[in-house]
Amino acid sequence: MKFQITFLPQNIITHAPEGTTVFNAANWAGLAIDSTCGGRGTCGKCKVRMLAGANSITDADRKYLTKEELTDGWRLSCRAPIHSESIAQVPRLMTSPKAALLGYGRHVAIDPNVAKVFLELSEPTLEDQQPDLARVVAALDKEGYAVRADPAVWRALPKMLRQNDWRVTAVVVGDELIAVEGGDTRDRAHGLALDIGTTTVVGAVVDLNTGAVAAVQSTLNGQAPFGADVISRSSYTMTEADGLATLQTRIVDTINTLLDQLLAASGVARENIYEAVAVGNTTMLHLLLGIDPEPISVAPFIPAIEDAVTLPASEIGLRLHPQARLSTLPHLGAYVGADIVAGVLATGLARERDEKLRLYIDVGTNGEIVLGSSKKTLATAAPAGPAFEGAQIKCGMRASDGAIEGVQIDDDVRLQIIDNAPRPIGICGSGLVDAVAELVRVGLVDATGRLMRPADARGHFCDALVNRLIEENGVRAFLLSAPEDNIVLTQPDIRALQFAKGASAAGVDVLMARLGITAQDLHEVLLAGSFGSYINPASARTIGLVPWVPVERIVAVGNAAGEGAKIALLSFREREAANRIPEFIEYVELSGRPEFNDIFTEALAFPTATKDERRTTE
Amino acid sequence: MKFQITFLPQNIITHAPEGTTVFNAANWAGLAIDSTCGGRGTCGKCKVRMLAGANSITDADRKYLTKEELTDGWRLSCRAPIHSESIAQVPRLMTSPKAALLGYGRHVAIDPNVAKVFLELSEPTLEDQQPDLARVVAALDKEGYAVRADPAVWRALPKMLRQNDWRVTAVVVGDELIAVEGGDTRDRAHGLALDIGTTTVVGAVVDLNTGAVAAVQSTLNGQAPFGADVISRSSYTMTEADGLATLQTRIVDTINTLLDQLLAASGVARENIYEAVAVGNTTMLHLLLGIDPEPISVAPFIPAIEDAVTLPASEIGLRLHPQARLSTLPHLGAYVGADIVAGVLATGLARERDEKLRLYIDVGTNGEIVLGSSKKTLATAAPAGPAFEGAQIKCGMRASDGAIEGVQIDDDVRLQIIDNAPRPIGICGSGLVDAVAELVRVGLVDATGRLMRPADARGHFCDALVNRLIEENGVRAFLLSAPEDNIVLTQPDIRALQFAKGASAAGVDVLMARLGITAQDLHEVLLAGSFGSYINPASARTIGLVPWVPVERIVAVGNAAGEGAKIALLSFREREAANRIPEFIEYVELSGRPEFNDIFTEALAFPTATKDERRTTE
Repeated sequence: MKFQITFLPQNIITHAPEGTTVFNAANWAGLAIDSTCGGRGTCGKCKVRMLAGANSITDADRKYLTKEELTDGWRLSCRAPIHSESIAQVPRLMTSPKAALLGYGRHVAIDPNVAKVFLELSEPTLEDQQPDLARVVAALDKEGYAVRADPAVWRALPKMLRQNDWRVTAVVVGDELIAVEGGDTRDRAHGLALDIGTTTVVGAVVDLNTGAVAAVQSTLNGQAPFGADVISRSSYTMTEADGLATLQTRIVDTINTLLDQLLAASGVARENIYEAVAVGNTTMLHLLLGIDPEPISVAPFIPAIEDAVTLPASEIGLRLHPQARLSTLPHLGAYVGADIVAGVLATGLARERDEKLRLYIDVGTNGEIVLGSSKKTLATAAPAGPAFEGAQIKCGMRASDGAIEGVQIDDDVRLQIIDNAPRPIGICGSGLVDAVAELVRVGLVDATGRLMRPADARGHFCDALVNRLIEENGVRAFLLSAPEDNIVLTQPDIRALQFAKGASAAGVDVLMARLGITAQDLHEVLLAGSFGSYINPASARTIGLVPWVPVERIVAVGNAAGEGAKIALLSFREREAANRIPEFIEYVELSGRPEFNDIFTEALAFPTATKDERRTTE
Repeated sequence: MKFQITFLPQNIITHAPEGTTVFNAANWAGLAIDSTCGGRGTCGKCKVRMLAGANSITDADRKYLTKEELTDGWRLSCRAPIHSESIAQVPRLMTSPKAALLGYGRHVAIDPNVAKVFLELSEPTLEDQQPDLARVVAALDKEGYAVRADPAVWRALPKMLRQNDWRVTAVVVGDELIAVEGGDTRDRAHGLALDIGTTTVVGAVVDLNTGAVAAVQSTLNGQAPFGADVISRSSYTMTEADGLATLQTRIVDTINTLLDQLLAASGVARENIYEAVAVGNTTMLHLLLGIDPEPISVAPFIPAIEDAVTLPASEIGLRLHPQARLSTLPHLGAYVGADIVAGVLATGLARERDEKLRLYIDVGTNGEIVLGSSKKTLATAAPAGPAFEGAQIKCGMRASDGAIEGVQIDDDVRLQIIDNAPRPIGICGSGLVDAVAELVRVGLVDATGRLMRPADARGHFCDALVNRLIEENGVRAFLLSAPEDNIVLTQPDIRALQFAKGASAAGVDVLMARLGITAQDLHEVLLAGSFGSYINPASARTIGLVPWVPVERIVAVGNAAGEGAKIALLSFREREAANRIPEFIEYVELSGRPEFNDIFTEALAFPTATKDERRTTE
């Protein structure tokens, strides 16, 4: 149940689920209300005047507001749940929060979950015997931070205070005091954003004061030798006694090694990394946390945890600051994980103020699909198989040096090869999509996916192309390279791509049907992930991987998951928003839906739009 | 600032500090309102009708009460802070809580902080893909427990649920889900109460379902080789590089060994000990937690922490259930620790309904003193030195086999020896107090503490006694034993006792003066600790260790600290009460008070009440 809330004088109107705080509703609508405490009711800065729908007075209100203010309807917006149609008057910001442009055109206020607070404490006397910790906690409370302290702080505190003449910097992560440092160290505060893919792990060290990325690097997931996809990783934990422990150790080692490189590249000190935010698919984050992923991989596909979690990073062996915290973002379902939630955050999909329909596709072994607007949003996962990764393709390979990544066909074939290598050694996912799309476009592959016989092609196509139609051991193929390099696209390769794109397209079709919309209604198609960044939008459309929309509406958004992790690291209110995303995105399970097989079968074909139709939308 | 609150229909009137919840005020006044969630606003059982002073409606109220109830003034009493004079109507208990008689005549409702909840969950399907943890958390929420889960639970959950056909028992400690066990294990729930003394550690394994003590044992604190008192322990951490770690390891090892014995004696399984509550003096608990105690031992005497803390017991190496929690009670000051808070809890001192003045003394190296009633309570510590422990006494020894523990003087000396040993080998604290008291009573020691010379005694006392007045190397002494055993009480021994009792008596005098009362006003004098249990009340009074009150008002309350730990283990509401004790007991620092030396000097003398005065009060 949603209620309308109006913010004055900006006159921003939005709708929020019952129980959302006024503070969070404002942020979701793009209005950053002043706050330093992370919306925990302890800094007293986020007060608004409720002209309608005022909540009951809370203890926090009583602490920070006068009787007159309470009578006049003033409330702390972060403690004010919405229970009816409401109007809130928001005072002009007292501070102008620093902001950064992040993700896909998101303007994000920099107010991280990590706060460093410099304290100049009075020395105790026989007349003032306040205990050390209470002294620090009281000083933090005065600055608007209500904290509980990590045991490591208890232990370090007596010496730390006395050796630094009672001048220290408190490090607060969320509502936990994780460290107290000697002197004023506020200028050194970093975090680690992690995007943990099945294949690749990307890490970024971010300056929490400025939002600047100090270093970013990627590396292969050390679990790769134990299977290329989440199902084979899961199988490994079932068949090997120590399988789960092995895979957890592998990913933790991968991250620790990556971090070593990031620290070396950036010059940032390990003890100044106070928090990590990790995103990834559901299975990857289960393995990271050491949780049995088996029930995710078999029907009815049940994760142990979908909620965001926070724990000491050291609990799983990550080597950041010894008391650093690790937080994840939530999952939407067994096959739409925190990486997709991060992508939704980074692209602003489903934002309250924006009613434009968008389609978000993360193309890969599992195609994750999100479709919707602020009104209603759906998500699903389509098991595409490994074709897009170049696996099970005769000359398939990863997107590395020597791979054909682009194909153009006119009077002959022109190849684009990664790193401009003189001779190709294979074909990667984007090259595969391009090759098939071009063959479809020129007519050498028909709508059903059949590659033309040389005999049928001769006379209709120039000789250079016809000569490329070959047959090897009874299997038809198309020679992409010079004959001596022998890089071919086979009929089975085309079938594999059809299955991959068919699964994804069928998922999109199911969601569009659920929302009662057609391709014409789509404002944008966002292609996420590294594959999505390299794919040719026109080719993706030609093979039917994305619906037929004007090509300029198809946008590669890059590593949206990693961007989402960075945004969550830099802004507690954005993280709070991300944590609530599962509440209003409906997860659609495709398995067990009887109509899916029909839709999938239809989606295997290549689009046969008439030239007229294409002209209309182009 | 306190407000009056009246409970109807019981018509119990009490006064509570602003902000106290109605639930806690009721408990403190001896009225147990129904609840299972520990006063966390999640079980909805503790509703009362506020006839005056109703608080604003909270989210928890909204969840559990109907609109009509809210309008009629019904509130959850555990979420209802008192901000003005209030009247609460308390419904008849829906359940009659089990209760046990604990401590010094305390009737305690058994509702421990540990709850085991049996859950029969529905199996997930493609139509019901709720994640494992969310399924368990939702089922617990329905039973009134709002929890966050330990990472160990995340990890164990998938297999645990599936191997036990979704029938499991959740183990909740406070608001944390620490374990999920297969099947129904509700009948196995134990806790560990720990009283950590500088000399002796006492442990009790308690059945949390019945309140029965399954086993109780004591052992020497393994830190003893590093110093007899808190000051020397503290010095050891300053002078040795690994001193703090060594002392922490020693006490943890002591407890683990003690627990092994308790488990063997009781037959209770280690994995069914879900929580420990530890009390002890401020220095002992700092060492247990691995916190530098140095600033406690030097002016201005500052602990790192005085608040109660909770942490995983494994964090300091205690071997209970792997996810068991350890909680401490709070301290009142550097030298009035959690053991005294536990004693106050166990004796009911300072209870709201009871305006009788009581004096609580824990006699030992540091005498801790609490004086007051529900109106006002003060506490202080008096540095008595080691005389009561038998140290620095020529023939002093611990209270073990062969020690003189009682002395009676008439026409000769009669000794009571521990374990009825045929010949004494030394004298322990209670024997020392008895010996001096008897010598004072018969007149062989005068009010200033001087032992009579044989020449002055002869003729006034029988020969048997006169012959016991001896001199060794110019030091006067009194022979307690047969000559061949040569157990003597020397003049310096008497002086040492004077200093010890003088410090304690001076502390009592300061507190009595502060409250403007005299000994006549005292309803009871409670002697706590093992020494307090063995001391002869009349002798304690004779030497002036306790004020001159009728002897039947002097009560040995035994190990009140250990009893308090047990009560806190068995009742979350009593623990909550204990945690608030520091808020209303004023800690009086004796150091640096110029008048203290005068009072102390006066208190060195033995009481010289006239026989008439004595008759009046006897």
